[in-house]
Amino acid sequence: MRMFHAIIVLTTVLFADGPIPRSKAIPDSTGNTLWFNINVLRIEGKGWKETAKPFDRLPASAESLVRPEVWKLSRNSAGLCARFITDAGYINARWNVSGADLAMNHFAATGVSGIDLYVKMPEGQWRWLGIGRPKSFPVNECYLAQDIIGAQKREYLVYFPLYNGLDSLWLGLPKDAFFSQAPARPANVLPIVFYGTSITQGGCASRPGMAYVSQLGRMLDREVINLGFSGNGRMEPALASFLAELAPALYVIDCLPNLQPDQVTERVAPFVMTLRKARPATPILLVDTPDYQDGFLIKPRMDRVLASRKNLIEEFTKLTADNVSGLFYLNGEKFFGQDGEGTVDGTHPTDLGFKRQTDIMLPVIQGILSRE
Amino acid sequence: MRMFHAIIVLTTVLFADGPIPRSKAIPDSTGNTLWFNINVLRIEGKGWKETAKPFDRLPASAESLVRPEVWKLSRNSAGLCARFITDAGYINARWNVSGADLAMNHFAATGVSGIDLYVKMPEGQWRWLGIGRPKSFPVNECYLAQDIIGAQKREYLVYFPLYNGLDSLWLGLPKDAFFSQAPARPANVLPIVFYGTSITQGGCASRPGMAYVSQLGRMLDREVINLGFSGNGRMEPALASFLAELAPALYVIDCLPNLQPDQVTERVAPFVMTLRKARPATPILLVDTPDYQDGFLIKPRMDRVLASRKNLIEEFTKLTADNVSGLFYLNGEKFFGQDGEGTVDGTHPTDLGFKRQTDIMLPVIQGILSRE
Repeated sequence: MRMFHAIIVLTTVLFADGPIPRSKAIPDSTGNTLWFNINVLRIEGKGWKETAKPFDRLPASAESLVRPEVWKLSRNSAGLCARFITDAGYINARWNVSGADLAMNHFAATGVSGIDLYVKMPEGQWRWLGIGRPKSFPVNECYLAQDIIGAQKREYLVYFPLYNGLDSLWLGLPKDAFFSQAPARPANVLPIVFYGTSITQGGCASRPGMAYVSQLGRMLDREVINLGFSGNGRMEPALASFLAELAPALYVIDCLPNLQPDQVTERVAPFVMTLRKARPATPILLVDTPDYQDGFLIKPRMDRVLASRKNLIEEFTKLTADNVSGLFYLNGEKFFGQDGEGTVDGTHPTDLGFKRQTDIMLPVIQGILSRE
Repeated sequence: MRMFHAIIVLTTVLFADGPIPRSKAIPDSTGNTLWFNINVLRIEGKGWKETAKPFDRLPASAESLVRPEVWKLSRNSAGLCARFITDAGYINARWNVSGADLAMNHFAATGVSGIDLYVKMPEGQWRWLGIGRPKSFPVNECYLAQDIIGAQKREYLVYFPLYNGLDSLWLGLPKDAFFSQAPARPANVLPIVFYGTSITQGGCASRPGMAYVSQLGRMLDREVINLGFSGNGRMEPALASFLAELAPALYVIDCLPNLQPDQVTERVAPFVMTLRKARPATPILLVDTPDYQDGFLIKPRMDRVLASRKNLIEEFTKLTADNVSGLFYLNGEKFFGQDGEGTVDGTHPTDLGFKRQTDIMLPVIQGILSRE
């Protein structure tokens, strides 16, 4: 907890809300565009400051403590983002990704390796504005938005790639544009930590902003920390210890699709107790597995879901009976809808499935947070 | 009309509903799986029989009559599909695509080049079951579904790639499985012809079945003919002539995003009159352009949409005032929703946007068809 709070205080002091000095920017060859390294802004969605690379999601110390698969995935920039204010008529992005596989066969490059831009509307809600489409490895450059109406200051939110590493990101703005940090989040509005699977990490959203964790962050207007590890959200003790270092408003544990049914029985209680011991008052939401969209006809898939769900409910019931407080359970059965159309492959939601999941999770999380 | 009716009659006669003879199949090396060429089935979504290649969407005669871009795109198998009945416990697919670009940077390979499988439920609705993920060029092979519960006969629907050419498609079934045509569509249930843009063709659906034309075909349980030509749905006279050769229940003209506003004024009336002259009683639905999802802040994008919409409404009003009958107009403004989240790039819907568009179009089309 101390470490996490230290980061918040430090960044708030370092970055007041005045304009970022132009001396920090690099002009392009014409001198008309100034390029700012994203590191001049607070990076949201990072649980730890002491990372091996700037956009890693686990601390450098994790390398020797988690499986190599988890470590590798922790270097994907899923859920990381930055907010800023500008009156620029255009916003360019130049970014370097660390992996040459820009896409997967069921997951577009825009989601895997793209940069996603939102703007805050006068009424306060976030609205999508532009996508940075990855076209080459390692460097990409394109407009996120141009011909923006009016020259008024607006708050923007830029998301980093979901399934690739981000080595660097620069924003290019007209040389005369205003550019500053967005206001820091209120100190009493703590982030939400999500720990889970490929679905948590954001597969297979069309853009980084459509991962359910990102959608919830915008709707709740709150920092979210995405600790989804594709195929590797397995509720291991090392991860429980790392999560316990954070001090969020809520832990969301969404690992079931990466656990065999007997692993659910074996791992849920110890994981929860590690968190509860370190954070006696922080609510923990145990998320049930969604139905596989082909499970109605594919027996092994249906069997696994039903067995995992049964075992999670048993663990939840036992923990509650043991007076573990602040523990919540969310049935995931209908996350992707009831028409079978919410996924690309039966398992991974598209933007349609993610929207449906977000709509189900939002009021549940709001309800838990309102008890704070 | 004659040509189209001839095809329907011919295929109905050629393919009765008995099992496809095993002599038409090629066994795999183990002899346990029989591979059937998809050509043993009726191919739905093809307006013309006389095509240069089996899965082209325009007749061979079009090559010299349409722009090269249109001709090239007509060789993408968008909207083509086949229905069959089997009691197989697994369904394999082997398919060859003609283009080496399996994906686009904002459009997953599963949508561009994949094979999509649906099954008819006991209640009669179609439900998604499996995806064939493209992994190589030109040949792909994978299970569409396996471990299917029970050994009962079910009706299946398999969609072809949206943005690639299909050179061949084979279905692999257990050697003892039943395999037949699905029943032909009732002769009095004519298809619907859709002519339009990249959106009509299906960009950027996660799977071929999620293109709005495909969704409508399932919901209406009716053959649909997808004549979407990415960037090239420009209401040219040659296309009007080709469309007039068909005898559908309804023409849906969805070209606005590929026309400049002055082209709307210039081309809509002649196009409509060519169809009306050839098909005096066939309803024609003119579809308005959807709002660009970034148009609220990007002035040139908003201007183009507003100008095109104004001009389409003017043309529709004039044609109606001139007593052109059976002409309908559909406002497309909210096709992709009102939260800005329905597209990947402001223009092209994701599955979320396509679902929303389908939900808006379905009752409108049902209303028009109910007047038949």
